[in-house]
Amino acid sequence: MKRVRLWIAYDGTDYCGWQIQPNGITVEEVLNEKLKKLTGEDVHVIGASRTDSGVHALGNVAVFDTESSIPPERMVYALNQKLPEDIVIVKSDEVPQNWHPRYQEALRKTYEYHIHNSPVPNPLKRKYSTHVSFPLDVEKMREGAAYLVGEHDFVSFCNIRTNVEDTIRTVTSLDILQEGEDLTIRITGNGFLYNMVRIIAGTLIRVGRGFYEPERVKEILEERKRTAAGVTAAPNGLVLVRIDYGTEDLF
Amino acid sequence: MKRVRLWIAYDGTDYCGWQIQPNGITVEEVLNEKLKKLTGEDVHVIGASRTDSGVHALGNVAVFDTESSIPPERMVYALNQKLPEDIVIVKSDEVPQNWHPRYQEALRKTYEYHIHNSPVPNPLKRKYSTHVSFPLDVEKMREGAAYLVGEHDFVSFCNIRTNVEDTIRTVTSLDILQEGEDLTIRITGNGFLYNMVRIIAGTLIRVGRGFYEPERVKEILEERKRTAAGVTAAPNGLVLVRIDYGTEDLF
Repeated sequence: MKRVRLWIAYDGTDYCGWQIQPNGITVEEVLNEKLKKLTGEDVHVIGASRTDSGVHALGNVAVFDTESSIPPERMVYALNQKLPEDIVIVKSDEVPQNWHPRYQEALRKTYEYHIHNSPVPNPLKRKYSTHVSFPLDVEKMREGAAYLVGEHDFVSFCNIRTNVEDTIRTVTSLDILQEGEDLTIRITGNGFLYNMVRIIAGTLIRVGRGFYEPERVKEILEERKRTAAGVTAAPNGLVLVRIDYGTEDLF
Repeated sequence: MKRVRLWIAYDGTDYCGWQIQPNGITVEEVLNEKLKKLTGEDVHVIGASRTDSGVHALGNVAVFDTESSIPPERMVYALNQKLPEDIVIVKSDEVPQNWHPRYQEALRKTYEYHIHNSPVPNPLKRKYSTHVSFPLDVEKMREGAAYLVGEHDFVSFCNIRTNVEDTIRTVTSLDILQEGEDLTIRITGNGFLYNMVRIIAGTLIRVGRGFYEPERVKEILEERKRTAAGVTAAPNGLVLVRIDYGTEDLF
């Protein structure tokens, strides 16, 4: 029995997120189904990040156990031949039997939230960014973003879910990159609460439009309640860019 | 009666190109239909560029005649409310009654052909670029591209169509931009033959892979036959970026 790790990219547009659920097709479900065809075994992948409906990934991670004779590093080719074009395996390798993609001390996740800031939408960007027609003040957004870096209780930036316990997280970096009319909020941390990146994006957009002063972000953190923050920004702008495990990085 | 000009962006993925045809829905057809709803008139737009099935645009141009009381510069808002999200009017204005989007002395068109050059495809780029998994030598592509700049008979870079007469065209610039794994072939000229940009892209990809020496591009021009050049690259990588009319530019 071997444990194989997959690094996975997908266009989330047509999926109800990562995790298997009754109301629609999910990335996890497609992977299990194609791996079953490939190995003849009843495979259940374990994912690192349960991305939401409509959210994209360039480097999500999953593992599965198999007795297949296909060498782990060759799984990438065999699997890509069976997958639809909106799911791509970027790399496959073998990990120790007890290696778990979510429980690793050094784990860091990087997300990007993409905004297209122009008077009219760009139809070629609509699936992978959120359109904001009013001018955004990027410097103010950066000022507001700075309050979120470090270890904080992010409960104000978390939508309600049943199993939330510890809401302390560490954001190690939060940059706002500008390239013409395209803004990217790039955020790295040791973990993210439910909808946290999208609520941060929604809040920083409010700062950029002038509805909130940058200092309001500090107050939202301190108020420790969800209603203090801005709206949850749309899922299509969000991409799970990479997961780092310290020693074994993809790129 | 007023002549109104539209500057149009669209995602060509789900359209059978610009021009009305019996086998599928086209951009021209959608515009006529929405303009009829808006004005109550039997509107027929005249387009500047009849893009092919699957080809995108950020700045195609069309005109139509109307007696509508909607001010020409307000058409952009009224029309965008009725259009599907993959077609967006960027700007609308009034032009003289005899102004034609194709017959203008100073007309220049700019196309971009996008290539994603990486070992595995990126699912977030698949709709707007062509994936090439083998490494491309960009310097050699630039050397080959240089032979195409200027006034030439481009008949070797033209797929057969009934009404081709004069195959002399002037390419005023042809640049290959590189940003990490993304290549953009950016080409400007006074007009383009049927599939010309896609055949140039297919030929330069062959140069980049080492199948053709850069000098081969010069020979292809001189041979004056379609079979001399490379394959027609896929439509999804092509974007009609802008049309310039000299004095009245969009951007």
